[in-house]
Amino acid sequence: MTSPRPLRIAVLGASGYTGADLVRLALTHPRIEIAALSANAKAGQTMAQVWPHFAPYPDLPRLVAAEAIDYAGIDAVFGCLPHAASAALLGTLKGPRIIDLSADFRLKDADVYASWYGGAHPAPQLLSGAVYGLTEFARDALPGAGLVACPGCYPTAVLLALLPLVGAGAVSPANITVNALSGVSGSGRSLKEANLFTEVAEAVHPYGIGAHRHMPEMEQQLAAAAGAPVTISFTPHLVPMNRGELVTCIVEATRPIGDLRAILAARYAAEPFVHLLPEGVAPATRMVRGSNHVVVNVFADRIPGRAIVIAAIDNLVKGSSGQAMQNFNLMFGLPETMGLEAAPLFP
Amino acid sequence: MTSPRPLRIAVLGASGYTGADLVRLALTHPRIEIAALSANAKAGQTMAQVWPHFAPYPDLPRLVAAEAIDYAGIDAVFGCLPHAASAALLGTLKGPRIIDLSADFRLKDADVYASWYGGAHPAPQLLSGAVYGLTEFARDALPGAGLVACPGCYPTAVLLALLPLVGAGAVSPANITVNALSGVSGSGRSLKEANLFTEVAEAVHPYGIGAHRHMPEMEQQLAAAAGAPVTISFTPHLVPMNRGELVTCIVEATRPIGDLRAILAARYAAEPFVHLLPEGVAPATRMVRGSNHVVVNVFADRIPGRAIVIAAIDNLVKGSSGQAMQNFNLMFGLPETMGLEAAPLFP
Amino acid sequence: MTSPRPLRIAVLGASGYTGADLVRLALTHPRIEIAALSANAKAGQTMAQVWPHFAPYPDLPRLVAAEAIDYAGIDAVFGCLPHAASAALLGTLKGPRIIDLSADFRLKDADVYASWYGGAHPAPQLLSGAVYGLTEFARDALPGAGLVACPGCYPTAVLLALLPLVGAGAVSPANITVNALSGVSGSGRSLKEANLFTEVAEAVHPYGIGAHRHMPEMEQQLAAAAGAPVTISFTPHLVPMNRGELVTCIVEATRPIGDLRAILAARYAAEPFVHLLPEGVAPATRMVRGSNHVVVNVFADRIPGRAIVIAAIDNLVKGSSGQAMQNFNLMFGLPETMGLEAAPLFP
Amino acid sequence: MTSPRPLRIAVLGASGYTGADLVRLALTHPRIEIAALSANAKAGQTMAQVWPHFAPYPDLPRLVAAEAIDYAGIDAVFGCLPHAASAALLGTLKGPRIIDLSADFRLKDADVYASWYGGAHPAPQLLSGAVYGLTEFARDALPGAGLVACPGCYPTAVLLALLPLVGAGAVSPANITVNALSGVSGSGRSLKEANLFTEVAEAVHPYGIGAHRHMPEMEQQLAAAAGAPVTISFTPHLVPMNRGELVTCIVEATRPIGDLRAILAARYAAEPFVHLLPEGVAPATRMVRGSNHVVVNVFADRIPGRAIVIAAIDNLVKGSSGQAMQNFNLMFGLPETMGLEAAPLFP
Repeated sequence: MTSPRPLRIAVLGASGYTGADLVRLALTHPRIEIAALSANAKAGQTMAQVWPHFAPYPDLPRLVAAEAIDYAGIDAVFGCLPHAASAALLGTLKGPRIIDLSADFRLKDADVYASWYGGAHPAPQLLSGAVYGLTEFARDALPGAGLVACPGCYPTAVLLALLPLVGAGAVSPANITVNALSGVSGSGRSLKEANLFTEVAEAVHPYGIGAHRHMPEMEQQLAAAAGAPVTISFTPHLVPMNRGELVTCIVEATRPIGDLRAILAARYAAEPFVHLLPEGVAPATRMVRGSNHVVVNVFADRIPGRAIVIAAIDNLVKGSSGQAMQNFNLMFGLPETMGLEAAPLFP
Repeated sequence: MTSPRPLRIAVLGASGYTGADLVRLALTHPRIEIAALSANAKAGQTMAQVWPHFAPYPDLPRLVAAEAIDYAGIDAVFGCLPHAASAALLGTLKGPRIIDLSADFRLKDADVYASWYGGAHPAPQLLSGAVYGLTEFARDALPGAGLVACPGCYPTAVLLALLPLVGAGAVSPANITVNALSGVSGSGRSLKEANLFTEVAEAVHPYGIGAHRHMPEMEQQLAAAAGAPVTISFTPHLVPMNRGELVTCIVEATRPIGDLRAILAARYAAEPFVHLLPEGVAPATRMVRGSNHVVVNVFADRIPGRAIVIAAIDNLVKGSSGQAMQNFNLMFGLPETMGLEAAPLFP
Repeated sequence: MTSPRPLRIAVLGASGYTGADLVRLALTHPRIEIAALSANAKAGQTMAQVWPHFAPYPDLPRLVAAEAIDYAGIDAVFGCLPHAASAALLGTLKGPRIIDLSADFRLKDADVYASWYGGAHPAPQLLSGAVYGLTEFARDALPGAGLVACPGCYPTAVLLALLPLVGAGAVSPANITVNALSGVSGSGRSLKEANLFTEVAEAVHPYGIGAHRHMPEMEQQLAAAAGAPVTISFTPHLVPMNRGELVTCIVEATRPIGDLRAILAARYAAEPFVHLLPEGVAPATRMVRGSNHVVVNVFADRIPGRAIVIAAIDNLVKGSSGQAMQNFNLMFGLPETMGLEAAPLFP
Repeated sequence: MTSPRPLRIAVLGASGYTGADLVRLALTHPRIEIAALSANAKAGQTMAQVWPHFAPYPDLPRLVAAEAIDYAGIDAVFGCLPHAASAALLGTLKGPRIIDLSADFRLKDADVYASWYGGAHPAPQLLSGAVYGLTEFARDALPGAGLVACPGCYPTAVLLALLPLVGAGAVSPANITVNALSGVSGSGRSLKEANLFTEVAEAVHPYGIGAHRHMPEMEQQLAAAAGAPVTISFTPHLVPMNRGELVTCIVEATRPIGDLRAILAARYAAEPFVHLLPEGVAPATRMVRGSNHVVVNVFADRIPGRAIVIAAIDNLVKGSSGQAMQNFNLMFGLPETMGLEAAPLFP
């Protein structure tokens, strides 16, 4: 009996946090061969020069310019590039199947994209064919997909919390209020004053109030589930931690809390990564740190008729690279959990 | 010309964080003499033995049992004891004026107290005479007060954000949703697993969902401003930082955002500690760390007709010991800012 | 072809950080079946009740008292109990091979143990047969070992940094000065004021000055390498982070730095977990967080004739549970890296 | 009786952490008027735009270019500029007395400066007249000084720990080994990857091994006390905290520990800011956070004949802006503690 040949992947944008976390996961994926890593501004450097945690891995492929990769022998490309740059490059690739972690292929409407991302979409012809890769709600489409758009981190958490409830009519699509907390890795490795240790540590503040770019994406998917337009309130806050994201959704319930709980329990009973917690247990980011797991729970609000649905993820794993790998597995007919088995790291 | 005699204070519960922060402030207050410090479980120890930051102050009074203090020569007692214990002791004191930082004298209705704090009120006869010491809204009552109940940290932030708006009818008292973030010092120095560094660092989670004890206090004060009963939604979250508290209030506005802004601007223009930030600037806890300052701002929500009002405080200062000192100053006819002039500590 | 039967393990003390990290690693070890988990004070609870990060693993064995385990069907026992308690229990076990993570079997001399650990050794008859499980220096002894004493976290880092150099005579065994930094998980999950978030965050301090219990263990092993008694200077400091340990060893070199570098390079060239960094690159704990890797480097001191040798580990993995698993693998003839392949988690 | 006129100060480099902390202290100094604030790259902005913690102080002078200040009416200039730039500018000023916080006037030998700072000294003619402003050892020189060079943060801590002992001949000037830990504010607000939250949090690493620029400064001052050249070993480490610095000095003692203790006790008995801790109590940065205090202690090492002397400071206060203010007070005949009375902030 011979082993199946490895699947050769390229990671574009391996000098960013999502790219690095994808490489971290790929290193222990039994079917993946890391064939190429790109980072145009750091081409020529080793991953160990760019990243502390790859110091023990001097043999990883050296970083090259994305244009220098021979895509002919690549099975899958993971795009970890900034928006717009991502679509501009990926739109030209022939051959490899593409898992994009940027925002470029999440919105179906190029006009909505333009209004939120400040420019015309670089490859609008690809939008209709792209699969929105919230894995648990995209299993039918993934095996045949050529282009998968991985959801943003906030949408991943919010949609896993709310989609089953909105879809079942148990939660009104009106007046959905989401307060969100995120670790700093969500804002990338860019050299901004706001990302300095001294600015972030021992502090918390909201940002993107009423204007975060993940809003149209959440509204698009919730509207599809509700069968009607949805406008949500969404306020993210920056929290002094590296990883982790927690969303607290205050919603109007049309049924008792017990019913909401039953809907979530049924929907996620067989899911390997999504876990409804026991009654009364609050989701916490430390339950999922470093893993692809999601924890969810629902509570009665003090205001009658309202419910509080809470979910926690690791923004770099289930909120980004882990979900990308989960999608990759399904695209290539592999077990969904392959390479994602690691338990959360605590403390 | 002779200096006025110092005002002699006793701090009960000086082994807790609020007690310690009160001592920190009192050390530089030009009119205060720290006459006595109590901590029944640590009686006999020095403050330097109990607290790292009092290592440079070996001459502070040694801790004694609260019952061992001679209250005859005390001008003011700061009560930093746990609820119930506080009222039980303070209810017996004659002579000194009392500034209580516990929850015991905040609620006017002893039945509400009993239902939230799990037992009959130890001194219900004192409730009607106690002044609710949200300083900016209690200036008339403080000079003559014998007993002042300092607000909880969350109510301080929420009420400063909302009272002027609800009072003016610019914000509906219905459907007020508050998401709150707090540093760990808010939960005290008690030896609970949930307070360990390893549990808190690199993590975030909600707690007291739909059931936090600060809710009735906020509702009581908002109802007074609204002239009608109020039920709010309130979800606090624990954030990995020592100090700081931020409340994000999503409300239904009956007037344009500009009007809300104008109301807050007018109300707080002359306040030494409450600051409406420039338009578009998000409040952040690092703006007030270690100080008695409060920063507030108001934003339009994405859902039409709603506003987001945000406030940040240091939970141990304006949310606790600083506000107590501010109240003390007004009770004794001193300048309101005396001993509270320190600017925030950043980074 | 049939799969080999799983190796059934029991983890004693699964309510502590080392026990929990061992369970985390065991969960993805392809040859391990977690047969029993003990925690006498929490017997009856699930791991998900005791630990946040096992919330996604409701099917882990329920905690039982160590005495309630049927050891007949257990292949290996991992002892994660406090010292003294560990030897008292493990000394009674017949059958399973034992990997002990406590301090009880590290010191060969029961008198030295008594003087440092404050009591007679509970099972001195086992000391001579116990293998000191610093894996890289114990490979010959591990396959036949019935009892393996895993080194302390500090000794692991210090010995990996210095043993090859002292053994080669390139570093004098006299005047070895070690300054060490450790994350808080090293002091366990016990409810001590010193472990509270508020005491640890934004702060640093030394502890156990001149008196840390890991000193005799380091001296014992260094003396064996030097062929003469060794007394070292060792000052550990507590750093506000969960995991990670870094040791900075100032030593007297008898040869040029280049030779020291060559000795380390040769010794660790084939090691899967120990990595000599490129010249001039400082070891950092973020290079190894959450992994079994070790990074080492050597530098010239400003004082002529002295060298600075630095090593970084994750105190819970290579410094504890990971090394225990590495030893287990060798004891049972498995590939040394099995279950330990995960790359470091950064950020 | 009329109040004395305020002393008008200018702070050059008010957009850096040391400049900002100086402004923080100046805000509550009863004799200071902040006349001008410079930051060439941010000229025209308000301090509230540049700094979160000055949000409550909209009336601070707007930032200007250093060249735009009218120095005629300025009593004192605090230089918080980068090295070289500092001397280049300060060397041209006539009139105001100068307190420089840069490295430019600390070293007496322009050649040593050139070899460590990579260029000719911009104003070597000023070196001989500059007072090295380690306040506790410079009281005679400060009242008449026109130019004071404030020590670096590490030298402040190390010299306060060792100068009395070396000066008394109780500690050998040979083989002094210093391991140091510093919070991140020590590396400034510059946009370097190494300063990002994600790189620093949950991590620790050494830097500047054998080559930190504070070494010649410490050696210069220790040599003066010893009456002979001194070469020290110094290894600083970056710790995930905002403020705080701790130095652990391993030295060869020529007298018993009790004598060392007595020397420090006598030397610092009357000092308002330097505190010898009780026997056995380890210095910790949380003892001094946000204050100008210093805590020191001495311990026996395990290697006979050696001692461990440890000191902790806040690197931005006693290690920088606080000591500058302390020097200012003495230069202008004010009480030494004026404006520096605030107790440490804990937690």
